[in-house]
Amino acid sequence: MSGVLSGFHPVREALRAGRPLERVLIAKGAGGPRLQELIELCRQRDVPVRFEPRESLDRLSRGAVHQGVVALGAAHRYRELEDLPADAQLLLLLDGVEDPHNLGAIIRTAHAAGASAVLIPERRAAGLTETVAKAAAGALEYLPVVRVGNVSQTIERQKKAGYWIYGLDERGGETFDQAAFNRPTLLVLGGEGHGLHEQVRKHCDVLVRIPMSGPVSSLNVSVAAGIVLFEWKRRRL
Amino acid sequence: MSGVLSGFHPVREALRAGRPLERVLIAKGAGGPRLQELIELCRQRDVPVRFEPRESLDRLSRGAVHQGVVALGAAHRYRELEDLPADAQLLLLLDGVEDPHNLGAIIRTAHAAGASAVLIPERRAAGLTETVAKAAAGALEYLPVVRVGNVSQTIERQKKAGYWIYGLDERGGETFDQAAFNRPTLLVLGGEGHGLHEQVRKHCDVLVRIPMSGPVSSLNVSVAAGIVLFEWKRRRL
Repeated sequence: MSGVLSGFHPVREALRAGRPLERVLIAKGAGGPRLQELIELCRQRDVPVRFEPRESLDRLSRGAVHQGVVALGAAHRYRELEDLPADAQLLLLLDGVEDPHNLGAIIRTAHAAGASAVLIPERRAAGLTETVAKAAAGALEYLPVVRVGNVSQTIERQKKAGYWIYGLDERGGETFDQAAFNRPTLLVLGGEGHGLHEQVRKHCDVLVRIPMSGPVSSLNVSVAAGIVLFEWKRRRL
Repeated sequence: MSGVLSGFHPVREALRAGRPLERVLIAKGAGGPRLQELIELCRQRDVPVRFEPRESLDRLSRGAVHQGVVALGAAHRYRELEDLPADAQLLLLLDGVEDPHNLGAIIRTAHAAGASAVLIPERRAAGLTETVAKAAAGALEYLPVVRVGNVSQTIERQKKAGYWIYGLDERGGETFDQAAFNRPTLLVLGGEGHGLHEQVRKHCDVLVRIPMSGPVSSLNVSVAAGIVLFEWKRRRL
């Protein structure tokens, strides 16, 4: 499913049917028992709820009556960590990539490099919209995308499952070509502009950096992802 | 200079003053000696001329009187091949990248990898617009961009100057990690979707490819550029 659903009943039915929803928007100031029921349903179905100005809902529903409730469909269904193959050798975790073109390009690149999944947080991150699907150029049909609640907890969980956690960070002690990549790898990348969050950095086993020439010291996040993912792949050629 | 100039006199004065212009647009069907003079001036100044429907010029000039002539300013001045350092070890030639976000990201990446310049063709390619400057995140202040007339002739010229020409092509006989990169390098990349043009491929010394997993067999061009440019840089770490 994709697109926009407006109004209490269409959104409730979609939630009950378990259709993949990117998120549910509720107009700020709206309330009452029906909305409470809807919010509880979102919680059960693991669909994020956002409270937005009524004008945002007006815009998204393009004139349709929305009663203070709009749902955004996901272009693709999210998968669960439990569904991933037990022998996955490379997973990519994005700590807050917000630009859908970047997310799509990264999914496309991760698939081409041989990653088994891309993990994205529920909050402050782009989800699987149509724009992402288009930028991923078909890779979403093959590469599972998992939505996780808490990035640090996800890292700790994957550590227990035997993964070595590499964070890409400009303050990293190793350059990307020095990284060992000899165990199941979880690569963690920060979002546009801010890099890795401080509390996420602390959970990584190793911080690696991409050394750069010249005074402009950052790369587009999808380019940085490509460089490290294909360094991982290069070792396997 | 950047922005839009409308009308015969403003455009002529900009051309005479040698201000950096991305291109000059002339309304289809417009003519007369004044326009002939302008076209000749564009030729002398090496500014591309395009003939466009009058509605396009109306839109660009936003209601200003344009008399059938509009000039688009370049965000940055182009440089000449002759201006580049004689000991440049890495040049990047883009055979028709049309998306300004991609061009900007590639300029940023090329600078970070230590390239000495990016070469772009005059025709069927994005130029140095404000969107490109923004996506380049400051790198345009440091990295020269050269506009070349003919891609194949430029390759032959650089061969004579001692460069080894690497074309990135999915049919390449070597993978990117097998490329020697032990002489001054000119890396040639195709545009979005079409890859290298057939006549350009023939002028390359070596075609290299990025091996990929899975059925989606292409990468975003800025990601592909990053992978090969940083493989070049990795050899020098």
